[in-house]
Amino acid sequence: MMKVKVAEHSGFCFGVKRAIQIALKTAQQNKKVATLGPIIHSPQMVSHLREKGIDFIEDIDDITDETIIIRSHGITSYDYEKLLNKKVNVVDATCPFVKNAQEYAKKLTIEGFQLVVLGEENHPEVAALLSYVDDSAIVVENPDSNFDLPKGKKIGLIAQTTQIEDKFEKLSVKLIRECKELYIVNTICHATLLRQESTKALAHNVDIMIVIGGKNSANTARLAEISKSENCRTYYIETSEELKDEWFKNIDTVGITAGASTPEWIINGAKKRILDM
Amino acid sequence: MMKVKVAEHSGFCFGVKRAIQIALKTAQQNKKVATLGPIIHSPQMVSHLREKGIDFIEDIDDITDETIIIRSHGITSYDYEKLLNKKVNVVDATCPFVKNAQEYAKKLTIEGFQLVVLGEENHPEVAALLSYVDDSAIVVENPDSNFDLPKGKKIGLIAQTTQIEDKFEKLSVKLIRECKELYIVNTICHATLLRQESTKALAHNVDIMIVIGGKNSANTARLAEISKSENCRTYYIETSEELKDEWFKNIDTVGITAGASTPEWIINGAKKRILDM
Repeated sequence: MMKVKVAEHSGFCFGVKRAIQIALKTAQQNKKVATLGPIIHSPQMVSHLREKGIDFIEDIDDITDETIIIRSHGITSYDYEKLLNKKVNVVDATCPFVKNAQEYAKKLTIEGFQLVVLGEENHPEVAALLSYVDDSAIVVENPDSNFDLPKGKKIGLIAQTTQIEDKFEKLSVKLIRECKELYIVNTICHATLLRQESTKALAHNVDIMIVIGGKNSANTARLAEISKSENCRTYYIETSEELKDEWFKNIDTVGITAGASTPEWIINGAKKRILDM
Repeated sequence: MMKVKVAEHSGFCFGVKRAIQIALKTAQQNKKVATLGPIIHSPQMVSHLREKGIDFIEDIDDITDETIIIRSHGITSYDYEKLLNKKVNVVDATCPFVKNAQEYAKKLTIEGFQLVVLGEENHPEVAALLSYVDDSAIVVENPDSNFDLPKGKKIGLIAQTTQIEDKFEKLSVKLIRECKELYIVNTICHATLLRQESTKALAHNVDIMIVIGGKNSANTARLAEISKSENCRTYYIETSEELKDEWFKNIDTVGITAGASTPEWIINGAKKRILDM
């Protein structure tokens, strides 16, 4: 009989669990509640919250009298100011680890370091982080790419919380060669690392890997990348409806892993469906 | 005819030239002048200074009424205090780059970083540097060795000014994996690097390499190491008297390189002698 193993660490991280709890609690205490943007990269979770009376608003201009929840990614300083000007009730559910990276971005910039951020320039977390420092910050998505650094400056390096440790190390090494002073603050979230390591370990012990998460979730996409790079046949799905019988032909052991934005009920649903096949 | 090429950068560095100039100038202005320990790792230079009336004293207790010159390596805070208690005239010729490393050691320690120093624990420069910080500092001579780091601490990394860049990079990478916060200050002196790079480049363009310097000079020993590791037949001598005819049989091009503590007249003497062979 086919076995299914779920990665030791998978699914919601601390910051996401916390943001959802804050949202649900806020909805119990207030009439009109909305998150600014979807709370996490999971359409299923967004629907679930809608059922609980929590809407989401994309544009601050569309806010009327809602209590607004800032999601775990955080928001830019400009949006924060706009929110304040709206004079609505604001509940900040920004992940403490994301806030920590923002604080270090500010600290390093104030102390005269040229800030370098390993991350995706257009990710909401990075956009928010950049808004708290001056325009000089440099975002590097790929350590192997070419990027210009101002000569003779002290460099401060941080990372988007969901980045890969290997990339961070690679960029660190590149920067050591470029400057006399380098202050490295590893702001990568432990949860991300644990999910990545669990996925890597599991990939060695299964025949195929099912990676579950929103297709627009960067951290889930990375789990799929890691699984593939361990030479494990890997399928990336959003819900159990996408599972196909043919994937499981002549397979003994199936691995399941899920990004930090994947609800537990989706992971359990997928496991059940695979076992029923 | 045999050609002799001298490495582009070789011999006295800025700090050593400066210390000797300070010593000579002090000897012109004062009757009894002595350095505390030999001014540099060159017995020839020490004799030369003695001819100019500059002695050297090993033990602070032996000082009577001399004007004391602190050599480019610097001295420990304990010795500095002892010197002050002697109430003698003190002229500080500590290399500014060595002083810079000492300043960073203090700064990092004060700011709560666990100080790690890449260097030789018993080298006078490192001993001096350590005396300015608390006992918690860790000295690492070989990045491949095992050493214990206190868990969860911010780490500050500096180096003895004469260390090799590759080792520094290797240790940096090891430390990145060990901590969340790593402040790297590359205190390796440019002069050392230039001598090392010149030696490496020259090793590819000569048949044999003559490395000149005091046998107790760590930075000269490293030049010999580098030359050998580039597969160049290498001889390490202190003066041209040690040159042997047999080394130069069937040789077209001879390279000469010298550590930062090797006087120019010794380099020129060796070049002349080789050309005369």
